[in-house]
Amino acid sequence: MADGGAALDNVRDRVGHALAQFLASQRSVLLSAGDELLPALDAVTGLAASGKRLRAAFCYWGWRGAGGPDIPGIITAAAALELLHAGALVHDDVMDGSDTRRGSPSLHRRFEAQREDMGWRGAAGSFGTGAAIIAGDLLLTWTGEMFRASGLPPDALTRGQRVLDLMRTEVMAGQYLDLVAQAASDSSLQRALRVVEFKTAKYTIERPLHLGAALAAQVPDAVFQAYSDYGLPLGLAFQLRDDILGVFGDPDLTGKPAGDDLREGKQTVLIAITRTRASLAEAAVIDRALGNPSLGPPGLAALRAVISESGALAECERMIEQQVSQALASLQRAPVTSEARDALAELAIAATARLD
Amino acid sequence: MADGGAALDNVRDRVGHALAQFLASQRSVLLSAGDELLPALDAVTGLAASGKRLRAAFCYWGWRGAGGPDIPGIITAAAALELLHAGALVHDDVMDGSDTRRGSPSLHRRFEAQREDMGWRGAAGSFGTGAAIIAGDLLLTWTGEMFRASGLPPDALTRGQRVLDLMRTEVMAGQYLDLVAQAASDSSLQRALRVVEFKTAKYTIERPLHLGAALAAQVPDAVFQAYSDYGLPLGLAFQLRDDILGVFGDPDLTGKPAGDDLREGKQTVLIAITRTRASLAEAAVIDRALGNPSLGPPGLAALRAVISESGALAECERMIEQQVSQALASLQRAPVTSEARDALAELAIAATARLD
Repeated sequence: MADGGAALDNVRDRVGHALAQFLASQRSVLLSAGDELLPALDAVTGLAASGKRLRAAFCYWGWRGAGGPDIPGIITAAAALELLHAGALVHDDVMDGSDTRRGSPSLHRRFEAQREDMGWRGAAGSFGTGAAIIAGDLLLTWTGEMFRASGLPPDALTRGQRVLDLMRTEVMAGQYLDLVAQAASDSSLQRALRVVEFKTAKYTIERPLHLGAALAAQVPDAVFQAYSDYGLPLGLAFQLRDDILGVFGDPDLTGKPAGDDLREGKQTVLIAITRTRASLAEAAVIDRALGNPSLGPPGLAALRAVISESGALAECERMIEQQVSQALASLQRAPVTSEARDALAELAIAATARLD
Repeated sequence: MADGGAALDNVRDRVGHALAQFLASQRSVLLSAGDELLPALDAVTGLAASGKRLRAAFCYWGWRGAGGPDIPGIITAAAALELLHAGALVHDDVMDGSDTRRGSPSLHRRFEAQREDMGWRGAAGSFGTGAAIIAGDLLLTWTGEMFRASGLPPDALTRGQRVLDLMRTEVMAGQYLDLVAQAASDSSLQRALRVVEFKTAKYTIERPLHLGAALAAQVPDAVFQAYSDYGLPLGLAFQLRDDILGVFGDPDLTGKPAGDDLREGKQTVLIAITRTRASLAEAAVIDRALGNPSLGPPGLAALRAVISESGALAECERMIEQQVSQALASLQRAPVTSEARDALAELAIAATARLD
């Protein structure tokens, strides 16, 4: 997403600053164990320095929408979600064996390179993987610590903590479900949609909004419901855009190699729709090419052609449009501040826009 | 540890019950994502059902020593440490590629077997590893949730949370340090002792005691200091006993295959001491055999002979005795309740006893 509009820009820099500050505060604890820890802290800090900050932005605007003032505490609490997300990405990349993340080497690859630079003799993969698992664990652990370091009042934190706890369990449940879908080669649309609900829609949009609202005040149920009515369709649209970019996106803009999702055999909604529309010959192309790790440009082109010519691509674009409309319509009726309503409308567009 | 004495027995059953209850309470959230999640919950529950409960026991007696009453809340808060530990073990086993844990298949092996039973076609290793990473993430995340679900007063939880946060960062720092030591084939006694301090002594004994004390009351610094003076030497003794059991222990009692530590090439304190005492010929045996994953009975016997005949084994036994004495002497002077003093003396013996 090249441009997030003012609603995102407003949050992005402050969140980045809060993250840098929090991570620096961990330096002395890590140093007390040994300066061998510092390259790991650097790697984690580098990863946390990038990112679109969507989850933090939704949390912030969830708070503002529920009447919360623009104070530093909510920025710190919202930024904690970016640590959670960074930790989830690090573990995701280990699980998928991904080489790149946000246009740079993934963390386990960075650690492997470090091992090589240092001339260590242990096995490359095992140090890289092990270090990345621990780095991800640190990020997940620090999420709660940063959240509580926000300085928001104890009763607000207690209300928020419940949402944060639920959100973490849900996203991990979604990841597990996704893993089962890949392992079982389950390409059903029904399962793909359930993965999206938990791994993306709740995690990226609905729960961050709920977290902001819970932190802000004892808000009525109608606010939570309104955030769900806006967040869940928008989350589906966001994931569908991601599915499309994973197949057709420009690597310079997406930060990951073209066709990675296809080589990994991801059972996305886009693929599930393609299967429902494919002819026998087209289905054979999918079965042959999807999930082939050494798939080259001709194979990628053939798969892209099936996705496009089956009409699945156009159907996904229609679904995005329809889900965004539904989200925006719910937003119009939502009992939130008008400033937040404008910002969330802007975020909906920013989160689902084409990159061309 | 076949017998933990009354100080451990008192805690063990109640902790197990609290864990089972908490894990059952996560069932509905996981079910909302899909019943594919239930085998994962079962696997995690099975793992959490075993364990010596040492960390929970130290936390409980840290609380009692600082004057805390025997109430259910402290059992729940202490039991949360067992979730943290289970999560750390799951990730440890992934990193080490260990096949067994507590006498049963490690979690990633259990997931691999599930994949096979289900006839899923995806790669065996990648599902097992991925599912275990997520299961470990859930356990780590649930640690904080269970801790807060203890129902202890908010100000107590706030004081305790600081210790819990520190403890988690420290143990992960220790694990990272250990990983670097293995990768760099660093066999120095100095580094091995630093790993023990962070990965074992602080994590297993000192910080659980501190956590209990912090939860109990605004206790004077002298109590924290006394727990450190008791906990750090005892932690070293505990790890040395573990080092010895990892080489010479009876698999029926330790729950892991004989010689696993040697095949994995663990740079333990026992090995570091062996190196400082080994003749040239003995050092050559170590270099050849340590870390050889296919090391058979003759190779294991040769390594054991070097560790024993170099005098390293006897030196480790002396160190254990000396560190336990130091811990007990500190305990005599500690400003804690006499009931806790008796229990901690008992725990010191239970945690470092020979298994023969």
